[in-house]
Amino acid sequence: MTPYETLQRAFARAAKLNTAASKLGWDQRVMMPPGGAADRGEELATLAALAHEIEASPQVADALAAIAEADLHPWQAANVREMRRRHLHAAAVPSDLVEAAETAAARCEIAWREARRTGDFESLLPLWRPVVATMREKAAAKAAALGVSPYDALMDPYDPGRRSAQVNDLFDDLEPFLRDALPKVLDRQASGPAPQLPPGPFPAERQRELGRRLMTAVGYDFHHGRLDDTTHPFSTGSSDDARVTARWDEADFTSGLMAVLHETGHALYTRGKNRNFAWQPVASHRGMTIHESQSLCLEMQVARSRAFTEYWAPVARDVFEGSGPLWQADNLHRWATGVEPGFIRVDADAVTYPLHIILRFRLEQRLVDGSLDPADVPAAWDAEMQHLLGIAPPNHSLGCLQDMHWYDGAFGYFPTYSLGAMAAAQLFQAAEQAEPGLHEALARGDVSPVIAWMRTHVHEVGCLYEPDDLLRTATGQPLGSAAFKRHIRERYLAPA
Amino acid sequence: MTPYETLQRAFARAAKLNTAASKLGWDQRVMMPPGGAADRGEELATLAALAHEIEASPQVADALAAIAEADLHPWQAANVREMRRRHLHAAAVPSDLVEAAETAAARCEIAWREARRTGDFESLLPLWRPVVATMREKAAAKAAALGVSPYDALMDPYDPGRRSAQVNDLFDDLEPFLRDALPKVLDRQASGPAPQLPPGPFPAERQRELGRRLMTAVGYDFHHGRLDDTTHPFSTGSSDDARVTARWDEADFTSGLMAVLHETGHALYTRGKNRNFAWQPVASHRGMTIHESQSLCLEMQVARSRAFTEYWAPVARDVFEGSGPLWQADNLHRWATGVEPGFIRVDADAVTYPLHIILRFRLEQRLVDGSLDPADVPAAWDAEMQHLLGIAPPNHSLGCLQDMHWYDGAFGYFPTYSLGAMAAAQLFQAAEQAEPGLHEALARGDVSPVIAWMRTHVHEVGCLYEPDDLLRTATGQPLGSAAFKRHIRERYLAPA
Repeated sequence: MTPYETLQRAFARAAKLNTAASKLGWDQRVMMPPGGAADRGEELATLAALAHEIEASPQVADALAAIAEADLHPWQAANVREMRRRHLHAAAVPSDLVEAAETAAARCEIAWREARRTGDFESLLPLWRPVVATMREKAAAKAAALGVSPYDALMDPYDPGRRSAQVNDLFDDLEPFLRDALPKVLDRQASGPAPQLPPGPFPAERQRELGRRLMTAVGYDFHHGRLDDTTHPFSTGSSDDARVTARWDEADFTSGLMAVLHETGHALYTRGKNRNFAWQPVASHRGMTIHESQSLCLEMQVARSRAFTEYWAPVARDVFEGSGPLWQADNLHRWATGVEPGFIRVDADAVTYPLHIILRFRLEQRLVDGSLDPADVPAAWDAEMQHLLGIAPPNHSLGCLQDMHWYDGAFGYFPTYSLGAMAAAQLFQAAEQAEPGLHEALARGDVSPVIAWMRTHVHEVGCLYEPDDLLRTATGQPLGSAAFKRHIRERYLAPA
Repeated sequence: MTPYETLQRAFARAAKLNTAASKLGWDQRVMMPPGGAADRGEELATLAALAHEIEASPQVADALAAIAEADLHPWQAANVREMRRRHLHAAAVPSDLVEAAETAAARCEIAWREARRTGDFESLLPLWRPVVATMREKAAAKAAALGVSPYDALMDPYDPGRRSAQVNDLFDDLEPFLRDALPKVLDRQASGPAPQLPPGPFPAERQRELGRRLMTAVGYDFHHGRLDDTTHPFSTGSSDDARVTARWDEADFTSGLMAVLHETGHALYTRGKNRNFAWQPVASHRGMTIHESQSLCLEMQVARSRAFTEYWAPVARDVFEGSGPLWQADNLHRWATGVEPGFIRVDADAVTYPLHIILRFRLEQRLVDGSLDPADVPAAWDAEMQHLLGIAPPNHSLGCLQDMHWYDGAFGYFPTYSLGAMAAAQLFQAAEQAEPGLHEALARGDVSPVIAWMRTHVHEVGCLYEPDDLLRTATGQPLGSAAFKRHIRERYLAPA
């Protein structure tokens, strides 16, 4: 075997272990009996350890050292670049540190579930300190291997090549824009007719049917996927089996509907991979910013657009057998684009959401560099919340305990949510320019111009380029805030 | 790490890969969208290859060579014995032969699905020849490594230590007994009142509820399992997540009910493992003969007994809201123990089933040793069927094409079904002797004396002994036909 073939084989094995694990993760959250958790933990840890060992292995290191990159065509060269990145990350952290970090995170995460319920940060702190300590060790080890700052080293697996300097610039630009826009958005909203949800309740069974109909309308193929119920919606799988999960609020069907379309955006990306490089790193998704751009494109750019609401409003009315003016697209569109500052990130609207992310991004950089002690997080959180959104959480459950990420050891992930929102706006606007009649098509329920454009410019491109080069090739620009600002202005600030 | 610790770690990893695969196999048959098959095939092949590589690895070979067996206590020594067996099997077959056999089997199995439908054996033959050829090569390689005959080498992973000479003796003894008994059983049956199924249809939803109630009654814990629908019922999982699947015939609820209890017997065995040796070979099941003894104990010895029918008949009547004399235990017991020679193994009753197995066992020995050419299987099949059951299949769908095993490369598996039936009778009769009042308990729906006895004498014993030593320790005898014959005489030949 040539060094390239050795690498192909090794990384395909790791990829298959990872999709096997993703499907076992689906089972764990959707089907597994509760008593199966301990065995499942052992199984998933074994798959993760084997994938990690393959990527960090001396055989992979030797093949990477031996490869003659000049002989490779661009897709192969990009494949090797991604392999190098994965190998660097995998080999950087000694396995006893990996294990210590995982053990600390597993213990803390269990306690966090209780702490979030009670709001008791103090009791959680002793279990969280080892998570932060091992995270800092990992960050230092990866920083040395990659030649970047510790925070950037943690962010790199989530958004490859992205650096915090750029993210700080983007967020420093976005923050005043949003803080300035927010009162104007609220004023404009208050000046128009108050949106009103049609009378419920909306039975879960009907919501599931609506979800399935809209998933099918946007091109999701149930021959290669499923829709199931869960507590926290997610999408997972592999390119020929990409599943979606959702939950149903019987008081407000729009929340489940938007979540379904969000997850369907992720699933369509998973389905759209370049089959010529199946199981290879170069055909994988281009990080979480780009992944989130695909879910937010479908949810925020398409599903909450005035045009597409023209299509889904009557479909929803039919499914729930409703009637009357509250089912008109105007009213439902106002409902689905309502803005209201709140404490909880996952409930936030498009305008306030980035402020929640900016808060987390700022604090986690300081947690990583050591300038913020874990004990001081609640106070720092509440102060930033007051500064950014003008509200102070009444308790830590609505404050620094609301998200699992930090307590489960995930640092550097948060920014990708809002970078993804920016990328979604940028990509959607490029698709709009390229595809005349796109909004007319959306109003008819035809999303194919958007999806076809994304398939060509994002899905099939995989990891051929670095994330910003993908955006540059697709939109003419690296990641920026201009398109997102324009989106906010047009949807939330235009004269009604 | 000591050599023993190295082995513990390696085999625990392999075990976790295997239970992960079993759960993905469950998903494949119960949940997976049809279009997910190709990716799932890759994932399962990767898990199987990694488990095989671990068991065959030089590290395992070195540790096995270095181990000081005198220092081990009996459970550890048995653990090492099982590791040696697995290592021998894994290392015996070169990986290119493993791959050639798997490829041949995968191709043939797909074509077999169509051939079974059409009855066209001739078209399947060219795809089956490579399966038989690679099977013979594997058998020869394993025979050399294990120092046994090729057929015995193939049978060994399914029923460790069992040899065909013993099985031939057992079957040569059983065959005339059953051929002699069959007409008498049919006469006796004809002389009594004809059993009649209560009027249906029996909705699947109610059958599922009946299944769940009886599973709970026999001690199945839904906190550690599930009941789902499938095409071919099976049980799979790990000791804290052992799932059962079933199918429901709306015309006859007893068929689904018996299948559910059969699979529940397997699941209880899986759940009953010795936790002190979790993930170790010594805590694993003691081969397919013993596994089948546990499912058949619950199905054939318990569920179809006159005593336990006293319990389940009124439960079934309640679930289906039935009334009248057809719901009496006498009638339902006669229905559930009806005997009728037929072409299809999986539909066969307790009396004729072993004759189906004897047929397959005889033919597959000749397929392995080369004295039967694949092309001559249909004629040989039909002749044996005429000899053993007095009926000739009208087509190959009802004859040699009915079972997947041979076309999927599984040879040496069939005998364990009937050896399991013998072991079930032998173990159940030992439990009867040890637990006075067992039948009275069954009539009340209390299966706990049987299950508790099996847990102590079979489940928790794992692989501490070889299969026949397990039986000897539990029942005083190695595997024999006496208990099974007594069971047939008492249930099917006793004066009515």
